[in-house]
Amino acid sequence: MNGIPFVKMHGLGNDFVVFDGRRDPAVLDLDNATAARIADRKTGVGCDQLIVIEPARDDLADAFMRIRNNDGGEVEACGNATRCVASILMGELGRNDAIIETVVGLLDANGASDGLVTVDMGQMRLDWRDIPLSEAVDTNHIPLSLGPLSDAVGVNVGNPHAVFFVDDAEAIDIEKLGPVLEHHEMFPERANIEVCSIIGEDQIRMRVWERGVGVTRACGTGACAVGVAAARRGLTGRKTDIILDGGKLTIEWLPDDHVLMTGPVATSFQGFLHSSLLGGH
Amino acid sequence: MNGIPFVKMHGLGNDFVVFDGRRDPAVLDLDNATAARIADRKTGVGCDQLIVIEPARDDLADAFMRIRNNDGGEVEACGNATRCVASILMGELGRNDAIIETVVGLLDANGASDGLVTVDMGQMRLDWRDIPLSEAVDTNHIPLSLGPLSDAVGVNVGNPHAVFFVDDAEAIDIEKLGPVLEHHEMFPERANIEVCSIIGEDQIRMRVWERGVGVTRACGTGACAVGVAAARRGLTGRKTDIILDGGKLTIEWLPDDHVLMTGPVATSFQGFLHSSLLGGH
Repeated sequence: MNGIPFVKMHGLGNDFVVFDGRRDPAVLDLDNATAARIADRKTGVGCDQLIVIEPARDDLADAFMRIRNNDGGEVEACGNATRCVASILMGELGRNDAIIETVVGLLDANGASDGLVTVDMGQMRLDWRDIPLSEAVDTNHIPLSLGPLSDAVGVNVGNPHAVFFVDDAEAIDIEKLGPVLEHHEMFPERANIEVCSIIGEDQIRMRVWERGVGVTRACGTGACAVGVAAARRGLTGRKTDIILDGGKLTIEWLPDDHVLMTGPVATSFQGFLHSSLLGGH
Repeated sequence: MNGIPFVKMHGLGNDFVVFDGRRDPAVLDLDNATAARIADRKTGVGCDQLIVIEPARDDLADAFMRIRNNDGGEVEACGNATRCVASILMGELGRNDAIIETVVGLLDANGASDGLVTVDMGQMRLDWRDIPLSEAVDTNHIPLSLGPLSDAVGVNVGNPHAVFFVDDAEAIDIEKLGPVLEHHEMFPERANIEVCSIIGEDQIRMRVWERGVGVTRACGTGACAVGVAAARRGLTGRKTDIILDGGKLTIEWLPDDHVLMTGPVATSFQGFLHSSLLGGH
């Protein structure tokens, strides 16, 4: 086979082209135009994000993970991508755990039952300065309302989230309300917007408007924010199943404020990139 | 490598997963659910159509080509797919021509210069009964108008087309007008709608609303219809370059009413399908 090998994977439908930069140094320095060409769903391979596994810089880590959006720009964190890379590394190492280095630090991952993977998503931050909000208010009751949505919970999961609880998340016009709330003056760095309903004991239905993206089928950091918000409000315990459009994530908020996210990983196919996609002609 | 091999190709951005059923009989009987799973752009491979190359039934043909939509349903003809399969067969055979068998007959293909491929798209039909139209009118001037569009040319290229000429095709709201015209009572089997402007000597800008699909970046049969319509009206000669959103196709209307379509073929990558996509679990 000619071309650079890759694996196409997804977590809850959030899909990735995964390259191995340890074996194929050519993928370490893809320019933005090449990244965008590979991400094109009609004329490239097609994906939400490109992932490059690189040699670890930190002795504690098994590998470094670089994540790039389909415009080539770099992304700090992605829970669904972390599960996919953890699954690859655990397979390589013949272990049930892996430490993944990212631009924002080390992430611990473990294999769970049924092929699921658990990732420690780090420490949640709840202070208004950390969300961040534009004024000093109780982040468990942000005074904010728009149509049927009011009284948000703020959580920073590496990125800012505002969580709204309603009786029926399905009935909310999130396409319309999401962009207005994302840009509300309360959020100086804008915010991801989650709308959710408690649908059973420690089970939450969640829909999400991702900052700068729009409605998506699954947002790992959003699920973390929702699990933490529901527990803060006393609506659930500290371990909950979050039902997203793309499937289920289990969120556990630990006493040290770290959050464990457990969810599925899937491999769609393996491929070899044609040289034309790398700018070969 | 494990899994069933495939090639991902496209013609002007109209993209295909191509399987070889001569080598991998498992792909000869994909059920609709499996075809849809493979065509899914997030969790499968992603494509507009699936193509299976099968052994020829007819002694004259080099191979049989089966085309399936992303809902699994079978498609009679696709010019962009035919160029892609022709390119594969010519490579295998070490020849500069190939004969491709389809459910509607044999198609001749030839390699042109610069890696382009020419396909004989068969005989155009211009009688009102063949388009078909719902009443006996001159198919060179179908009395039909909607907003800025009027006086269509009807051409049947295996499927029905209505071609409208305007001063500036870019200025037409084809998203709005296309679906109304597609379902106009003049077209008992509905119609593909092309809106075009003459932009140079034997050069035409074309935009297309595909029947049952919507606006697309390239429609090979639509380009054939436009080339024939412009020549019928005396607006161009019988050989024209058609500029679609996805790129250029050259159309030649022969004296025997056959149409030759010449255009590009591109390979994006080769892959091996994971067994889960074939219903393996």
